[in-house]
Amino acid sequence: MYMTDFIGYAAACFTTFALVPQIMRIWRLKEARDVSMFMPVMIGIGSTLWTIYGFLIASIPVVAANSVSLVVALLTISFTMKYR
Amino acid sequence: MYMTDFIGYAAACFTTFALVPQIMRIWRLKEARDVSMFMPVMIGIGSTLWTIYGFLIASIPVVAANSVSLVVALLTISFTMKYR
Repeated sequence: MYMTDFIGYAAACFTTFALVPQIMRIWRLKEARDVSMFMPVMIGIGSTLWTIYGFLIASIPVVAANSVSLVVALLTISFTMKYR
Repeated sequence: MYMTDFIGYAAACFTTFALVPQIMRIWRLKEARDVSMFMPVMIGIGSTLWTIYGFLIASIPVVAANSVSLVVALLTISFTMKYR
């Protein structure tokens, strides 16, 4: 079980923070023209549903990862809107 | 259980195909300058780990979603490389 949770948390780190370099790139270039708005919107909706699913299957890594993912997705949406 | 699986599959649809509009946007603009390369790379590594985690917790939606996500992430990486 320990190893399972470890893999879940490692997976969580990668997918949760995947949009952070995208936010940083938009911030650095002050430009988001090539970034699809549907991408963070879909991740936001998906993260919300994964969080609910995680509660239902009682998986703490799924809940933890996806609730943070939702925040990161909302940040990406606001950055993409600002620099579009 | 039926409702739990349904939510898992709905979540899977959104997060699995989240990068598809990004691929389409790169294809349409023939430009990926504003797209961070770390983003699909992190999603690719994360999807691989989530797939392993899904096997370990015996969650078919987690396995199904993330193995397809990996393919989509690899496609995004190749499109981003081509149009950078």
